[in-house]
Amino acid sequence: MANQIATLLNEAERFVLRKELDQMNHVDIAEELEELGESDTLKVFRMLSKDKAADTFAYLDSTIQQSIIEAITDREIGSIIDELFLDDAVDFIEEMPANVVRRVLANVAPDKRDMINSFLKYPEDSTGSIMTIEFVDLKDEMTVAEAFARIRSVGPNKETVYTCYVIDNARKLIGFVSARTLFLSNHDSFIKDIMEPNVIFARTSDDKEDLMNSFRKYGYLAMPVVDSEDRLVGMVTFDDALTVQEEEDTEDFEKMAALKPSQNTYLKTTVFELSKNRIFWLLLLNLSVFLTGSIVAMHEGMLAVMPSLVAFMPLLMDTSGDAGSQSSTLVIRGLALEEIKLSDILKVFFIELRVALICGGVLAVVNCFRIMAFGNSFPLALTVSLSLYVTIILSKTAGAILPIVGKMVNLDPAVMAGPALTTIVDAVSILIYFSIAKAILGL
Amino acid sequence: MANQIATLLNEAERFVLRKELDQMNHVDIAEELEELGESDTLKVFRMLSKDKAADTFAYLDSTIQQSIIEAITDREIGSIIDELFLDDAVDFIEEMPANVVRRVLANVAPDKRDMINSFLKYPEDSTGSIMTIEFVDLKDEMTVAEAFARIRSVGPNKETVYTCYVIDNARKLIGFVSARTLFLSNHDSFIKDIMEPNVIFARTSDDKEDLMNSFRKYGYLAMPVVDSEDRLVGMVTFDDALTVQEEEDTEDFEKMAALKPSQNTYLKTTVFELSKNRIFWLLLLNLSVFLTGSIVAMHEGMLAVMPSLVAFMPLLMDTSGDAGSQSSTLVIRGLALEEIKLSDILKVFFIELRVALICGGVLAVVNCFRIMAFGNSFPLALTVSLSLYVTIILSKTAGAILPIVGKMVNLDPAVMAGPALTTIVDAVSILIYFSIAKAILGL
Repeated sequence: MANQIATLLNEAERFVLRKELDQMNHVDIAEELEELGESDTLKVFRMLSKDKAADTFAYLDSTIQQSIIEAITDREIGSIIDELFLDDAVDFIEEMPANVVRRVLANVAPDKRDMINSFLKYPEDSTGSIMTIEFVDLKDEMTVAEAFARIRSVGPNKETVYTCYVIDNARKLIGFVSARTLFLSNHDSFIKDIMEPNVIFARTSDDKEDLMNSFRKYGYLAMPVVDSEDRLVGMVTFDDALTVQEEEDTEDFEKMAALKPSQNTYLKTTVFELSKNRIFWLLLLNLSVFLTGSIVAMHEGMLAVMPSLVAFMPLLMDTSGDAGSQSSTLVIRGLALEEIKLSDILKVFFIELRVALICGGVLAVVNCFRIMAFGNSFPLALTVSLSLYVTIILSKTAGAILPIVGKMVNLDPAVMAGPALTTIVDAVSILIYFSIAKAILGL
Repeated sequence: MANQIATLLNEAERFVLRKELDQMNHVDIAEELEELGESDTLKVFRMLSKDKAADTFAYLDSTIQQSIIEAITDREIGSIIDELFLDDAVDFIEEMPANVVRRVLANVAPDKRDMINSFLKYPEDSTGSIMTIEFVDLKDEMTVAEAFARIRSVGPNKETVYTCYVIDNARKLIGFVSARTLFLSNHDSFIKDIMEPNVIFARTSDDKEDLMNSFRKYGYLAMPVVDSEDRLVGMVTFDDALTVQEEEDTEDFEKMAALKPSQNTYLKTTVFELSKNRIFWLLLLNLSVFLTGSIVAMHEGMLAVMPSLVAFMPLLMDTSGDAGSQSSTLVIRGLALEEIKLSDILKVFFIELRVALICGGVLAVVNCFRIMAFGNSFPLALTVSLSLYVTIILSKTAGAILPIVGKMVNLDPAVMAGPALTTIVDAVSILIYFSIAKAILGL
């Protein structure tokens, strides 16, 4: 798709461009702005209405946000931040360097500044750090008509008006009512009679992964957030939940591939940053693979007597590694989605044991015949396939159990997968291989 | 958390139980029912109000759904299916055996039966297969007051009333209007004047992964779905999108670990099914690793002259495999989230090349010193570290490019990751190792 904004800007069609911008979705505007140069971006940005400028700003990349902020007046800054939803303002400020933060905070209204400061204090993975304060709260003694009046007056500045939260005089959360219920209720009914008192809520201190699990389970549009004294302090809407789930899954993908999670998308990360995120784990895994090397070195005498043993080392290492990743991946994903609980550890162990007996058995038999078909002796074929059988049982059970044990001791289960597991499994499988070779081949 | 339903049922507190069920969320009821026996489940299920029974039914596991359907009367079946949203009814029917499907379809109203049948025809990964038809449609010549009247009359049976779609007389989608806009508009305004004509929509034939990307991008509550003639035929709501994203990510995790994607959650899959999902890839990878083995076997003479070469094979294979998975994982995830496009292939190649030069360089130097520190000669250390450098460059560039090439020829990028890549990289790295050894050590 061509960049419409760039085309109209080049043709100096100011009037048409302004009309086009009015019609465009702010997400699309942000996307097209990212492809323009700095001065063009600023030119177009200033053509936007106050509302749309703030909406678009929230979707821009932080480097572009910074260049805009550095180019506009203090008054303009104040007006943008004022229009931003609090969670977007906080997201933006978190990415800015200290001097920009100072200038931004100096130009927002004092009450908003206090709010932003208190939000910046929530821990990174907490529900508090992603919630917004733009929710509609109602009192239980209100009538439906009064509720409608309140929604009409405060609604334009709220992130959603479709789920309203009911609080008592101490601001304690006592229920919720959906706009749908309000629609279908009598205008003089009382909120306390139509509200749903059974509220599913989160706490500011909850891990955002737990929040995600509630979202997925109940399918709600928004989830209220309360503080340690059960007072309603915020709300998380489904679109933020969708972003959190995407980020959490990306992080798990990265950890399982032995990568330090990155802040930016792939193409926006520098080569230096990409290298830095990878080298730590590569060095660590590379160090531990020296163990496998030493085990091999210790058995050089054996290999000199029976050189064909070497040819089956890759087979043993790769196949048991693959078998182990299959198990660890399923368990890690199951833990993340709360389909597997810590108390299921024994159940998981026995499932994997049986799966390993079946898969390992099939592979052992197939490989035994195949190795003999390549002209090798039966004792050698038996040595390889028996080693394969034992290492698959070990790698599958260890692959499934390690992430659960990791989670028990508060380690990230995802780190226990793939590469880290392979390194352990490799050392063990080579050790088993040589032991079985010694026993069967009498080396 | 104790199972409240089970407790009350055991204490024969029917009246209290009924009251408790009224208050409970249907998702929680479904969760607790799954832990009861068949006859208790049925007993409790029949205590639920018609609405709640249908809501709860949609969240039950398909084996429990089937046992309920087999135990209730034809009339009860008709009433449950009638209350279910169409997408939930279709999901349920897709899981049932033929005889149950026949009995269910015989007991629903003819128009609903026709609908269900037409939905069953959408391909599995298409947007059509997950959409629902319970949306609110408005005409552009309606006033806001008329729109409210329509929402009030049809609303109770719609999945959402917060986004209404505007159609013309040929049922073509021409705009949308949110309940929030309706709230804030004058009662005698016309829909055509307040509607947003710029609608983001999906087609029934669109892949649901593309639909997900739109959901994530725009953060909408619901997305309208049109047929090949631009007529509005359905809608997908955010909660279904959340489920789709979870499923797509799970599928990618599984494919990247060389697993056939599973239909059920881990603990609900039988050991036989789990084994079946794993054995195909294990056998295939195991077959291809024979290639690596053959390369090793061909160089047995060389290994006999210089046995210490063997000890560094695991290091070479593991480290280059890890380096390759890092790259492929980032690219596969980037492709799935549309952060990387097919046209970025050259850009990605050069990024990975530079990252590989950095990471590979660090690893080569570190390993060269480490190998000498263990008392090996400089030529051997040079052989290993030079091989490592070359294979890391190869595995990183291939790991990043193969998923993109795969996607170009319509292969799933995720299959190109991890295990499949490792097998290729292993064969190549061993080949490079022996060639470099020959050149440097003169073997």
